[in-house]
Amino acid sequence: MNKLDLKITGGTVVNSDETFRADVGIRDGVIVALGKELGDATRSIDASGKYVLPGGIEAHCHIEQESSSGIMTADDYYSGSVSAAFGGNTCLVPFAAQHRGQKLADVLTTYHGRAAPKSVIDYSFHLIISDPTDDVLRRELPEAIEAGISSFKVYMTYDKLLVDDEQMLDILAVAKRHGALTMIHAENNAMIKWMSHRLVDGGYDAPKHHALSHPRSAESEAINRAVTLAGFLDTPILIVHVSTEAGARIIAKARYDGHKVFGETCPQYMFLNAEQMDLPGMEGAQLCCSPPLRDRASQEEIWRCLQNGTFQVYSSDHAPYRLDDTGKLRAGPTPPFTRIANGLPGIELRLPLLFSEGVMKGRISLNHFAALAAGNVSKIYGMDHRKGSVTEGKDADIAIWDPELTRIARAADLHDNMNYTPYEGMPLRGWPSVVIGRGNVIIENDQLKVARGNGEFVPRRTIDCTGMPGRVAPELNPAINFGVDLDL
Amino acid sequence: MNKLDLKITGGTVVNSDETFRADVGIRDGVIVALGKELGDATRSIDASGKYVLPGGIEAHCHIEQESSSGIMTADDYYSGSVSAAFGGNTCLVPFAAQHRGQKLADVLTTYHGRAAPKSVIDYSFHLIISDPTDDVLRRELPEAIEAGISSFKVYMTYDKLLVDDEQMLDILAVAKRHGALTMIHAENNAMIKWMSHRLVDGGYDAPKHHALSHPRSAESEAINRAVTLAGFLDTPILIVHVSTEAGARIIAKARYDGHKVFGETCPQYMFLNAEQMDLPGMEGAQLCCSPPLRDRASQEEIWRCLQNGTFQVYSSDHAPYRLDDTGKLRAGPTPPFTRIANGLPGIELRLPLLFSEGVMKGRISLNHFAALAAGNVSKIYGMDHRKGSVTEGKDADIAIWDPELTRIARAADLHDNMNYTPYEGMPLRGWPSVVIGRGNVIIENDQLKVARGNGEFVPRRTIDCTGMPGRVAPELNPAINFGVDLDL
Amino acid sequence: MNKLDLKITGGTVVNSDETFRADVGIRDGVIVALGKELGDATRSIDASGKYVLPGGIEAHCHIEQESSSGIMTADDYYSGSVSAAFGGNTCLVPFAAQHRGQKLADVLTTYHGRAAPKSVIDYSFHLIISDPTDDVLRRELPEAIEAGISSFKVYMTYDKLLVDDEQMLDILAVAKRHGALTMIHAENNAMIKWMSHRLVDGGYDAPKHHALSHPRSAESEAINRAVTLAGFLDTPILIVHVSTEAGARIIAKARYDGHKVFGETCPQYMFLNAEQMDLPGMEGAQLCCSPPLRDRASQEEIWRCLQNGTFQVYSSDHAPYRLDDTGKLRAGPTPPFTRIANGLPGIELRLPLLFSEGVMKGRISLNHFAALAAGNVSKIYGMDHRKGSVTEGKDADIAIWDPELTRIARAADLHDNMNYTPYEGMPLRGWPSVVIGRGNVIIENDQLKVARGNGEFVPRRTIDCTGMPGRVAPELNPAINFGVDLDL
Amino acid sequence: MNKLDLKITGGTVVNSDETFRADVGIRDGVIVALGKELGDATRSIDASGKYVLPGGIEAHCHIEQESSSGIMTADDYYSGSVSAAFGGNTCLVPFAAQHRGQKLADVLTTYHGRAAPKSVIDYSFHLIISDPTDDVLRRELPEAIEAGISSFKVYMTYDKLLVDDEQMLDILAVAKRHGALTMIHAENNAMIKWMSHRLVDGGYDAPKHHALSHPRSAESEAINRAVTLAGFLDTPILIVHVSTEAGARIIAKARYDGHKVFGETCPQYMFLNAEQMDLPGMEGAQLCCSPPLRDRASQEEIWRCLQNGTFQVYSSDHAPYRLDDTGKLRAGPTPPFTRIANGLPGIELRLPLLFSEGVMKGRISLNHFAALAAGNVSKIYGMDHRKGSVTEGKDADIAIWDPELTRIARAADLHDNMNYTPYEGMPLRGWPSVVIGRGNVIIENDQLKVARGNGEFVPRRTIDCTGMPGRVAPELNPAINFGVDLDL
Repeated sequence: MNKLDLKITGGTVVNSDETFRADVGIRDGVIVALGKELGDATRSIDASGKYVLPGGIEAHCHIEQESSSGIMTADDYYSGSVSAAFGGNTCLVPFAAQHRGQKLADVLTTYHGRAAPKSVIDYSFHLIISDPTDDVLRRELPEAIEAGISSFKVYMTYDKLLVDDEQMLDILAVAKRHGALTMIHAENNAMIKWMSHRLVDGGYDAPKHHALSHPRSAESEAINRAVTLAGFLDTPILIVHVSTEAGARIIAKARYDGHKVFGETCPQYMFLNAEQMDLPGMEGAQLCCSPPLRDRASQEEIWRCLQNGTFQVYSSDHAPYRLDDTGKLRAGPTPPFTRIANGLPGIELRLPLLFSEGVMKGRISLNHFAALAAGNVSKIYGMDHRKGSVTEGKDADIAIWDPELTRIARAADLHDNMNYTPYEGMPLRGWPSVVIGRGNVIIENDQLKVARGNGEFVPRRTIDCTGMPGRVAPELNPAINFGVDLDL
Repeated sequence: MNKLDLKITGGTVVNSDETFRADVGIRDGVIVALGKELGDATRSIDASGKYVLPGGIEAHCHIEQESSSGIMTADDYYSGSVSAAFGGNTCLVPFAAQHRGQKLADVLTTYHGRAAPKSVIDYSFHLIISDPTDDVLRRELPEAIEAGISSFKVYMTYDKLLVDDEQMLDILAVAKRHGALTMIHAENNAMIKWMSHRLVDGGYDAPKHHALSHPRSAESEAINRAVTLAGFLDTPILIVHVSTEAGARIIAKARYDGHKVFGETCPQYMFLNAEQMDLPGMEGAQLCCSPPLRDRASQEEIWRCLQNGTFQVYSSDHAPYRLDDTGKLRAGPTPPFTRIANGLPGIELRLPLLFSEGVMKGRISLNHFAALAAGNVSKIYGMDHRKGSVTEGKDADIAIWDPELTRIARAADLHDNMNYTPYEGMPLRGWPSVVIGRGNVIIENDQLKVARGNGEFVPRRTIDCTGMPGRVAPELNPAINFGVDLDL
Repeated sequence: MNKLDLKITGGTVVNSDETFRADVGIRDGVIVALGKELGDATRSIDASGKYVLPGGIEAHCHIEQESSSGIMTADDYYSGSVSAAFGGNTCLVPFAAQHRGQKLADVLTTYHGRAAPKSVIDYSFHLIISDPTDDVLRRELPEAIEAGISSFKVYMTYDKLLVDDEQMLDILAVAKRHGALTMIHAENNAMIKWMSHRLVDGGYDAPKHHALSHPRSAESEAINRAVTLAGFLDTPILIVHVSTEAGARIIAKARYDGHKVFGETCPQYMFLNAEQMDLPGMEGAQLCCSPPLRDRASQEEIWRCLQNGTFQVYSSDHAPYRLDDTGKLRAGPTPPFTRIANGLPGIELRLPLLFSEGVMKGRISLNHFAALAAGNVSKIYGMDHRKGSVTEGKDADIAIWDPELTRIARAADLHDNMNYTPYEGMPLRGWPSVVIGRGNVIIENDQLKVARGNGEFVPRRTIDCTGMPGRVAPELNPAINFGVDLDL
Repeated sequence: MNKLDLKITGGTVVNSDETFRADVGIRDGVIVALGKELGDATRSIDASGKYVLPGGIEAHCHIEQESSSGIMTADDYYSGSVSAAFGGNTCLVPFAAQHRGQKLADVLTTYHGRAAPKSVIDYSFHLIISDPTDDVLRRELPEAIEAGISSFKVYMTYDKLLVDDEQMLDILAVAKRHGALTMIHAENNAMIKWMSHRLVDGGYDAPKHHALSHPRSAESEAINRAVTLAGFLDTPILIVHVSTEAGARIIAKARYDGHKVFGETCPQYMFLNAEQMDLPGMEGAQLCCSPPLRDRASQEEIWRCLQNGTFQVYSSDHAPYRLDDTGKLRAGPTPPFTRIANGLPGIELRLPLLFSEGVMKGRISLNHFAALAAGNVSKIYGMDHRKGSVTEGKDADIAIWDPELTRIARAADLHDNMNYTPYEGMPLRGWPSVVIGRGNVIIENDQLKVARGNGEFVPRRTIDCTGMPGRVAPELNPAINFGVDLDL
């Protein structure tokens, strides 16, 4: 047997479905052996008393992305990827956002150009589709999927981004035909606008009023609509950042009924609530995000729906806008909530929060943590041939977690480019101590060990619906019965 | 005691909630006494062996209305009202349809002008709102409500008629503030258009393909959306012509949860199905309506939801377009289904169908028939101070039904201006033998006994939500909790 | 026209479905005319400014009934009927309770003997079946139904009363065959016993612990089981005294699905909660009843399910046991809650509570009040040919309500034989001022105007399921498909 | 590195959550290495083109078990284990059945004595508890759990086996306290008995009538009851052999709500239906099992609920009774269905059926197959420290599946002791070609390679509920709120 490049010894390997004691042998960036007697290695890392987990995959984050109103996120691919790595992640899937009028190939070229020279960990992109022209639908999107971009996101809200129901059907049909997954920001735009106007007109325009402007039923209505449209075409979708139990219930019911629907939630809906926005001045702007924070009861419900499997994906939705005139307050020192940039940072704390409050408090198992950190995402987004678990043949993307390490969350200690964290002061137990990407140590002794541009683009596979609970387009059955054969 | 104008003797009075043997005494167009010893009358009608029911109120019909594409219904207020009267009705509430750009007052003036000189029975109007301008919302609509038009209808489909979700919220807010009821045609416009394009492009453009172009879930999605928007404002709505159990279930659940939602279905969804559209040539065009006919299982489900009270209203949705170049085939001799005028006739057979198949076959009680014929509608639409039951003090609007009379439904025997009936050949048992409006005999011995213009406009009351299962705007609770006081 | 015995003038008549201004003419105990010009009467009562309602029918109360442990209710047919009359009722349907080993004919003879000489208002009986022997099932029960006892109650809890599931099926089959309605006390006996043992063993045996010994899910489980058994045979049942929303939801869903299920709730579940049982000494025993009081949130939910129609029946479940050694404390001065007689008084306040908190506070309409007071019960229990509304031809059972009369509820003012009321001190607005039974004034000027034994037995009709939402025994379809023809 | 005993090379390893190319190294019965360069081995098996799966765990089967009526299964631990092994299984968990009056220790001693000398594969036992005496509850059951029997089954039907609801609560409380899992045969006994009597009395006593005697709602009612009782104590249960969608839906909803409920189904409910029982003479007796076979629509629904994860366990419920006087016809040549032994064989075809119809037809993924074959069961029943996946450190229990092998199912080819298979004639694609237990080849070239008694007893761990979706005994919250601290 050839000499290993790296050996991780003495740890407990934890994957989505298995926990076992084994050393991990790595060569050429790949895990080549799991066992007790792996032979020599150039380097060896002792993981005794620690958990050897797959490196986290952060699959919902906004990095070096300008919004439709021209505001750039605080993090570029360097700070964003470094922060992610310190939080136990070895892979990112941020958005490459099409603004209206842009060609998808140009969008991808731009984002490749941003990520390649800077990212310290591997990455892929989800496309945001805001302008589904005929050319986008017929040529550009299939080409992007072919090039490894097998997921894209559409918005049902935000005037400059949203697609209407007919455009959504067009996009879903392309996704179905070419094996891509459609991610959906599901909120009813009309309800939000209608309520926002009345709130602002009534003088209720402080940051805390943002939470009122996005009714809970705006989310559940839109989720129901998205599930209906996707179910009509029997094509898989993923509802991102679900914040209400009413929304979660629609997803759970749809899955039971045989629809191909996935659900995602985010730490903010589990660890924060709208009451915390009642702060002096513009401080509450730190917690403005969409969907907004809800109430305490909702936090418990979202936890339960994470536990019961309704949410397969847990992401940060890291959308970093500093509380200053480059970010949250770009529109002025005291803008109405409608003009405050939406989003929260969370890329570095996503996993420590879940480990501490989930695993260490007995709410979820270690395996479930591994699934939420990396395993589920790797499968849902077509990366499991390379990422998502500590398995022979996969990329040696590993985070060694020390369950005994306790730290207080502090913005000052984080590696993003933000000037606050919504979790300031929370004591968290359990942190990654060593992070390894494709066999290279990225983080060790709290220090970054790789250079800018260490990460590589990961082309992703198309979505395999085999064995996915599903139905043969129930709505189209009448068509089939009539002998109609549509190219759907 | 003064002499009565008319006395109905020996019959069994049947109201929504009561059945009793009593004579009915009428003076000055009003029921003045119920009992056994009513004194003398100028005229007496023997109703022995017959049921003395409230005259039917047909609350969903299109009479002398031009569509947005300029096609006029086959029936004007004369033929429409005569046909309705022969079917046991004594009151009509057709639509006064705003086309975009029109002022509501002008619309109402037009329809008053059409109805007043022709209608043989009493009438009111629902407004159709297709253009909710600021002026409509702030001034015209409140004025119309004030003038007795306490209900209006909006469309979620048809490009030239539909209101979007934000407009719907605007309209619902006006309805809430001024005590009106909003009727909603709930189908997802995008799904219908998307599917229609593909069907027609694929060559599936025969009348029978119309049924495929309106997916079932297009209806249930839109009903869910309408219920969400109305629930957000806690204001009453009525979902018209529900054709699917999935849609009915949303209504039933919303009512259980305390939403103010009413449901309507129509005879076509109980007595017809899409298989019947598979006819040679353009014959199937006779059955093109929206929502479309569904399958046999659906017919049973709609019956069940009528029985279990999910549908409080049962209307004809009489939309008469002849199968010729004035109606269904106005766009040419063999138009694709997308260019066939939508609608079915049914104003004369609505009640005989329900009596025969519902009452005589034991599916519903006589009282339930009275409720569906008149009682429920009178309350829901604000007419129960004058119409809807055989009660002391109300208008003497009465239909005497003979349960032993059996006839075959034939277009040739009907009094509308159509050249077909979808129910041709059905044997129906139980027909109205005498119809009385405000004390005047309208129909007797199968003959019309009154002149054109006998009917009067009935201004309607605003909607009383007292005791209606409802909630204090659950979605607005957070606003209330935040001390926000919006003028909703 | 012959002279009337009595005329009620100037009032507003309120029935379940109608409100109208009319005088009411009465002769020979029957309503003979409704109208404005009724002719002369021997006596006239002015009801100006008041509501002329059907007399209440109290259909769930325990009068002069000994429990299986030998304890007699505090009220006999005199005090019970007088108290009911002062509360606006003109008819009672208490229980005739079979103890095991007793013949039904003997039971009925006993109760007829108790009621006939004492009751001041009309009455009928529901049988309690605790011993469904072959003879009971084949002969005694059909004979009782034939004699006008068309409803009976079974218990799923209480060791000395309960029937097991197989006995329940036997009884339901008899009910189906002979047109009777089965009332069911639905609680899971095992859960209650299991929990009670542990509570008492743990020293948690105070009255307030009674509420813990009857888990909420003990109710919903048993309701589900009862609905399943009755649905299996497609025969109507009524779930009595529902205390939880989970239970109500099962009923609502079953009705939607086409099962013949009715629901009842009681004032205690709307106006009281378990927190109020936390009283010194044995005071809490006043509120021991089964199902027990629940929490505040539950009160709101029960109100909602009354409003939305899930509960068609609203009864007192008057079960009067004094807080002394004849009643609640018969087993000793400080018995564990398991030995405290279960039940609350409420026969006199049932309707004033609902009028004050329901009608006067806008939660229900006057018509809904009339339906809950009398109308619904008259139909469900087969009495609507004589009772339940102010209609020509029916018994002149009338309560004239004065909406302006406000009184404080006080045990000292009530006419039952109890020494407490759970509603002590509540200000209630709206009381009956005159109560009339079969044309005789029973209560006037707060005085009883009739002698003992004024009431008569009312034989009841069998249950008519025509038009009742229902299905042809869905569970038996396979049998039918197999060509099996069972005498069910 | 020491020499391996056995090496499996060239195959694709498939676990519940992972698929990867790796050789498998085995020493001392344990998997010691996974990778590409594993060093020398005493023996090597080529698995090229094949799937290296965890050996199946058959966790619901009746082997060498006498029924309460004294009839012994056709298979003893030799034939049963051999048949299982040929079907790709390496572990069995049959029942050790307590008859009333028996001590659990004696029962276990008996079954250990039966299995140890005969079983060719590893095994454990579930206890069947039919007599939960105080001694059983306090001492015997905890001792059994301590000895590695961490699951037991109770029946809600069969007069000689069933426990009533109170006994169920007692057993569930022991399970909760000691970390055991309770398996529940959920059918309402009363409904079955009631219907059976009427069928037999009516002359409908052929085997095919058995299916009518177990109504669908008898299953869903009992599942609801079991879920309620377990939810009351917040303790995990597993509903075995679910045959209806109505039952599955209760499980899915309970899981969503946070109850610890697992579900199992069996091949007979996916591959067979009741129509197939309509055979001449007693042939239909072959398909008599309980719950019974349902209809075709039900088969599809059960498939869907396997796909959507409602059923985590898929077992044979192998209950082998020959169609002769030793088994099905022991009560005579033409017994009524009530006297026909219940049960079907299936231990050998369980996995080939699922592989062929599930994996090869794209209904489930290979990973899902591995989960259903072994992975899920190993976790749910406390064996995953040793069994359930091809993972470093686990027992080398492996089945090498050849997806290209197609065979026709024939009773004559099976290795059980039955004289029929319900799946006779079905062509199945994909079979195990080599089966390895703790490193020993058990089956190879269609031949058994080990001697009687090769299998060992596997003590099982207690159930770990960490991270299991669950709630803190919602029903007990009121108790907690009252400051009550019960030893539940």
